[in-house]
Amino acid sequence: MRGYIEPRVLKGFRDFLPQQESERQRVMHLLAQVFHSYGFVPIDTPILEYTDILLGKGGGETDKQVYRFEDQGGRDVAMRYDLTVPFARFMAAHLNELYLPFKRFHMAKAFRGENTQRGRYREFVQCDFDIVGTEAASADSEIVLMIDRAFRTIGVDNVQVHIAHRGVFNKLLEDLQVREGADEVLRIVDKLRKLGEEKVRQQLKELIGADSTNRVLSLVSANGTNEEILDRMRSLAPAASDHIARLSEIVTTAEQLGLGKRVIVDPSITRGLDYYTGVVFETFLTELPEIGSVCSGGRYDDLAGLYTKERLPGVGASIGLDRLMAGLEELGVSSDTTSGPDVLVMCLDEKLTAHYHRIAQALREAGLSTEVYPEPKKLGQQFSFAEKRGIRTAILCGESEFAVSAMNVRNLATRESTDGVSLEQAIELARRLRER
Amino acid sequence: MRGYIEPRVLKGFRDFLPQQESERQRVMHLLAQVFHSYGFVPIDTPILEYTDILLGKGGGETDKQVYRFEDQGGRDVAMRYDLTVPFARFMAAHLNELYLPFKRFHMAKAFRGENTQRGRYREFVQCDFDIVGTEAASADSEIVLMIDRAFRTIGVDNVQVHIAHRGVFNKLLEDLQVREGADEVLRIVDKLRKLGEEKVRQQLKELIGADSTNRVLSLVSANGTNEEILDRMRSLAPAASDHIARLSEIVTTAEQLGLGKRVIVDPSITRGLDYYTGVVFETFLTELPEIGSVCSGGRYDDLAGLYTKERLPGVGASIGLDRLMAGLEELGVSSDTTSGPDVLVMCLDEKLTAHYHRIAQALREAGLSTEVYPEPKKLGQQFSFAEKRGIRTAILCGESEFAVSAMNVRNLATRESTDGVSLEQAIELARRLRER
Repeated sequence: MRGYIEPRVLKGFRDFLPQQESERQRVMHLLAQVFHSYGFVPIDTPILEYTDILLGKGGGETDKQVYRFEDQGGRDVAMRYDLTVPFARFMAAHLNELYLPFKRFHMAKAFRGENTQRGRYREFVQCDFDIVGTEAASADSEIVLMIDRAFRTIGVDNVQVHIAHRGVFNKLLEDLQVREGADEVLRIVDKLRKLGEEKVRQQLKELIGADSTNRVLSLVSANGTNEEILDRMRSLAPAASDHIARLSEIVTTAEQLGLGKRVIVDPSITRGLDYYTGVVFETFLTELPEIGSVCSGGRYDDLAGLYTKERLPGVGASIGLDRLMAGLEELGVSSDTTSGPDVLVMCLDEKLTAHYHRIAQALREAGLSTEVYPEPKKLGQQFSFAEKRGIRTAILCGESEFAVSAMNVRNLATRESTDGVSLEQAIELARRLRER
Repeated sequence: MRGYIEPRVLKGFRDFLPQQESERQRVMHLLAQVFHSYGFVPIDTPILEYTDILLGKGGGETDKQVYRFEDQGGRDVAMRYDLTVPFARFMAAHLNELYLPFKRFHMAKAFRGENTQRGRYREFVQCDFDIVGTEAASADSEIVLMIDRAFRTIGVDNVQVHIAHRGVFNKLLEDLQVREGADEVLRIVDKLRKLGEEKVRQQLKELIGADSTNRVLSLVSANGTNEEILDRMRSLAPAASDHIARLSEIVTTAEQLGLGKRVIVDPSITRGLDYYTGVVFETFLTELPEIGSVCSGGRYDDLAGLYTKERLPGVGASIGLDRLMAGLEELGVSSDTTSGPDVLVMCLDEKLTAHYHRIAQALREAGLSTEVYPEPKKLGQQFSFAEKRGIRTAILCGESEFAVSAMNVRNLATRESTDGVSLEQAIELARRLRER
């Protein structure tokens, strides 16, 4: 007996079946259209890079998760674990060929050998967009506006962008004379949503004492309208007035574009230990807050400092497509119309193969996606194939029918059948069935 | 002084700048539309797989080129080197969830540590499409018809699909009692286009003698109309009449769809040592024959025999997107309209940022892709930015203009400027400039 290799995939990696993949491509295409409409352009970079490019100084938590090996030429190489580091390298390499401000998007796979128990994948798709080469508030606003537009375009209307400013938080900590523990404070505050206020209060107290904890929590737990929260910030961190003015500007722009209730000042957003230095944001599906932020980002001082002396300030965000797709499915906004073609031309007689392809070609030219069944299997089998494919219209044509240029068109949902139909009429019928 | 990491990429790997990447995505999107219109559905599979899945019995030339390593969990893993092997594994794994015949396409990256001196890339994009689960001639024809349609859709009208049948060649060799050297004969014949007839004749003579060489060459060098070549086949390899009938059927279908001159019977096509067992084809850009086949494939007996006992016959082909993109550029059929947005809203006064974004939003809603310049740099600098981006229309709006709802619209090609324009008029003007 012959032994077969078990057709398994690696843990944390997935196949995408047609329905899932169609839906993913539909969403990616819509996102690309939004980005294009804002003047963003696509780029691509290699999946494999020199390890020193990707890890830089290295030593972090990420390093252990990176797929890293020696290639055939003895080079130390690694698979990219995000799209930010390759983008920084890209900007440093191509500055002379580009213009600033440079607005790019990049939708592609990245790889991390993470613990899959947390529901994370080791191969995942990121969708990043950035405006690089400007410090203007206009760019911050544009990213926020575009996030909102992107989610609305893919059919998610109930979305809120929460924004804060790293500088406000830093100024408060400076004022409280917390310096060495600042990173740790950020790390704890970042868990507010997950752990709740009491646990966070306890942990902070141990680190910075009760008074400072009160002030930190009264900043990050601020409630009210955007204007009320901005006022609270002004009183708690008066030294941060520039940063608060920047936040206020973004909120005002959002309000003037009718997005007042969709852009929320939320001082609890800190983006942990990320490299952000200015505005930071996270995006929540208001009907699915539990899945966490589906699009996060912020402003940074210097994108590519590892590779070039040119200072490149910018602002950007990233959509985790896998989490988003899961969210869309849960919200029921996935489309299932992307699966099957519109029409099946059935095979009654193998000798008519060329005719069937000719009919199919005419249907396609009329804008109907059309599949030709390749062999004269029993009609029941062909109908059941059409059903599995989600096809709505079948066209049957035996020799005699073809001779008089008349076909039989069947509505596969109702099994209603129309005889003696011309090609033009068949197209008309199939179009009507598609609209339903 | 600080040391920077040189922002280099690995040999055989490339960055894609916006213009190239836009063009690549445009072509991929058009191809996907064609595939959808024929009822093909997209799938995706992991870039990283278990090595035994990808290499199977292994031992071939490919093996040395595969990026293979041990992952963090001690698994022997490899990056896919084509899309065929993962597809076979996919079919074996998901047979229960699919229907047959199954028609899929897959456009994605694959990796080979090849010698880059031959102008090949180590990271490349393949575009594969297959019909699996049928032996019908209709499926063979459909692949040929779809190849033709795909190239026409991306703007390449001068394309020919050359077809042959591995069985015809095999029958002739059987008839000549060449058995053990059959693979070697195929290998030599496959070089006909590259080495010319004389060199091939010499090599064959040494292997199978003068008489057999004459018969092999008179088959593979056959000239004339499709019907004449089919006749020659019939007389040279009478035992292959079934295979020749299959070829004839495909040619007839192509003729009946008006593609008589675009589908060429060409017995010199053997597809080397590939796993094809039936019809084989290669596709040439008639204005660029020197770049070789841009789309090759054929029929196979059993796709997934390594992983399952289910026999899965099928037919398919693969476009090497990198070679194709190079060909398109050389032919001048690349589009350069994909680069810049339609309109730049210039920044005259930072206080008007929200207004600028509002104007931009109205333009986008009218279908015009629009970029907002983020800061009040000198006008000359903003104009020069617009020029580099290939933008045709600029909208200028200072406070006073906004107050009376009037803008200044500039045609950036002619520098012609129109004052006192309303938003509606601006949209109209920008649309007209886009059409030019």
